[in-house]
Amino acid sequence: MFVYTGAVARVTILGAGMMGTATAFPLAARGHEVDLVGTHLDAALVDGMCRGEGHARLRVALPAQVRPLQLARLPEALARADRVVLGVSSAGLGWAAETLARSLPAARPIAMVTKGLEAVDGVLTILPDRLRAGLPEALAVEPVMIGGPCIAGELARSTPSTVVLASRDAAAAHDFAAVAHGSTYRAVVVDDPIGVCASAALKNAYAVAVGVAAGLHERRGGEPGAVAAHNLEAAIFGRAVAEMARLVEVLGGRRETVAGLAGAGDLYVTCQGGRSTRLGKLLGLGRSVAEARKELSSPGAPVTLEGVDVAEIVLGALPVGLGRRDLPILDRLHAILFDGAPAEELVAVS
Amino acid sequence: MFVYTGAVARVTILGAGMMGTATAFPLAARGHEVDLVGTHLDAALVDGMCRGEGHARLRVALPAQVRPLQLARLPEALARADRVVLGVSSAGLGWAAETLARSLPAARPIAMVTKGLEAVDGVLTILPDRLRAGLPEALAVEPVMIGGPCIAGELARSTPSTVVLASRDAAAAHDFAAVAHGSTYRAVVVDDPIGVCASAALKNAYAVAVGVAAGLHERRGGEPGAVAAHNLEAAIFGRAVAEMARLVEVLGGRRETVAGLAGAGDLYVTCQGGRSTRLGKLLGLGRSVAEARKELSSPGAPVTLEGVDVAEIVLGALPVGLGRRDLPILDRLHAILFDGAPAEELVAVS
Repeated sequence: MFVYTGAVARVTILGAGMMGTATAFPLAARGHEVDLVGTHLDAALVDGMCRGEGHARLRVALPAQVRPLQLARLPEALARADRVVLGVSSAGLGWAAETLARSLPAARPIAMVTKGLEAVDGVLTILPDRLRAGLPEALAVEPVMIGGPCIAGELARSTPSTVVLASRDAAAAHDFAAVAHGSTYRAVVVDDPIGVCASAALKNAYAVAVGVAAGLHERRGGEPGAVAAHNLEAAIFGRAVAEMARLVEVLGGRRETVAGLAGAGDLYVTCQGGRSTRLGKLLGLGRSVAEARKELSSPGAPVTLEGVDVAEIVLGALPVGLGRRDLPILDRLHAILFDGAPAEELVAVS
Repeated sequence: MFVYTGAVARVTILGAGMMGTATAFPLAARGHEVDLVGTHLDAALVDGMCRGEGHARLRVALPAQVRPLQLARLPEALARADRVVLGVSSAGLGWAAETLARSLPAARPIAMVTKGLEAVDGVLTILPDRLRAGLPEALAVEPVMIGGPCIAGELARSTPSTVVLASRDAAAAHDFAAVAHGSTYRAVVVDDPIGVCASAALKNAYAVAVGVAAGLHERRGGEPGAVAAHNLEAAIFGRAVAEMARLVEVLGGRRETVAGLAGAGDLYVTCQGGRSTRLGKLLGLGRSVAEARKELSSPGAPVTLEGVDVAEIVLGALPVGLGRRDLPILDRLHAILFDGAPAEELVAVS
């Protein structure tokens, strides 16, 4: 239906947070025209970009072919778009589906950097399926998930990055890869939407568990450095990859997807920093979840902790054939997050 | 044949380098008596330990139940040992087999922390098989490989560590696990000696590749920190896990072993520091292999670069069913190491 011919693409990105905005950079580098439309939460960010100040959180200037727009101008942007990228937070997915349903003049290919899992009627559901279900039939396409190891701040600085694209419509994934692939943005298509989407969500929970090791180490008087707690970190990491593979397989995806870019690779990059590992470190240091949440929030802006949400959703809707004891790391993490269990309990299952 | 009954074990460790010595600590913590016998290369280290100075490279004091001995006293130690741990370097394996053959009074269970792969008549061979083949029939046992994510410096400081044990004789692996397992040394038995041994060797080569990312980043003027080259690092890491899984499967091991503690976990810990990633970083910075080798060597002591050896051995004896182009990361790493290809070539396959 949509096959990229090599022409300049006109892409509307909905969501001007870190990852939505960063995704504009490789598209611009390929010469495409990008309308970057903020949600109502992004109004101040878009204002700043419209004044030519760059993105306040990414701290980089926008490329010339990227036009920042406030939400009111979404219909105008979508009217000229031949492709859409969804860059909202996972909590905003329902809103985004309604908004696209109202504003899209016709069916357009949709790619998404929004990551997460949801329980729909007690069944773990990948977000592209949720999005598709939220679109009217005339606009319904199989969305393309963009997963893989990609930190927004690096992407916006053209550090070489590799992403993994997957969709229930393989042609749609190949189309978007052809549009976006470049020398510093390698877009790899994997024929496993469940594996890619589930890995992208699960890695946030498991990165919290890996982060606990550093906190426990410091709490015992250890200093970061050559002799830290990398053995414990790595044991949790290795077991995390194994648990993710087990989960993905039971959900209908493939273990190989986890043992590659989308699973082990994405978990690796998430463990190099970011909120999930910082949360884990605070828990290892002995903070309660509430205390950690407060430390990670900016004044007046409660922080979204994807890892916490994912742990709750997954253990609340475990697929048939998998019990909590098949997932000891996630099980103990859940006990630490929701039942006040001490962070040390991760050591015994690592 | 050997089943641990819970009594105090008498273990002789041959090799008083970092990992051989560190393995004495969890054994001592379990109350076992350990004779730590240095090779001729370890004479100065053993001298220091005999003077009560601790291990000069680990910089820790030995536990009371560990007796440091010079090589001349190996027969005496083996005469009272009920178990043996081999802690020599992979280059010393042939020597160790001959030495044990001469000095062991009778067959004893042998565990080994020595890691590597060898090409025997053009066939990639795991080191326990090499060791077994080097022992006379009266002494031949199936050795137990100790793999998994375990840095010696942390192990010797009782940081929680998890190791993976595997042997062609599953009972032997369970016996050693029962002897060594403790609250800060979790010994997990995996029924896949090929997967565990191959992963333990391969991770050194792939850690060199991961290390290249940081070097390339610095060379382009980037600074380490929040925005570094973690996307590239993680892409190489994810692809490395996938390649290791492919290799292990063709060698007769299991992909699941790689997607867990022994593969992804061990590669993770190796990427947190150590010679292999330091070599990769120097290559990324533009050094030749010879220059990097010189920088990594101590005066008068040429350094062993396991990653270089493994890359050469594996690509020189690829198993049937696997071509160099099935292993693009290892292929490009080999070209960088042996054909002077620029380190940037890893970016295109990441």
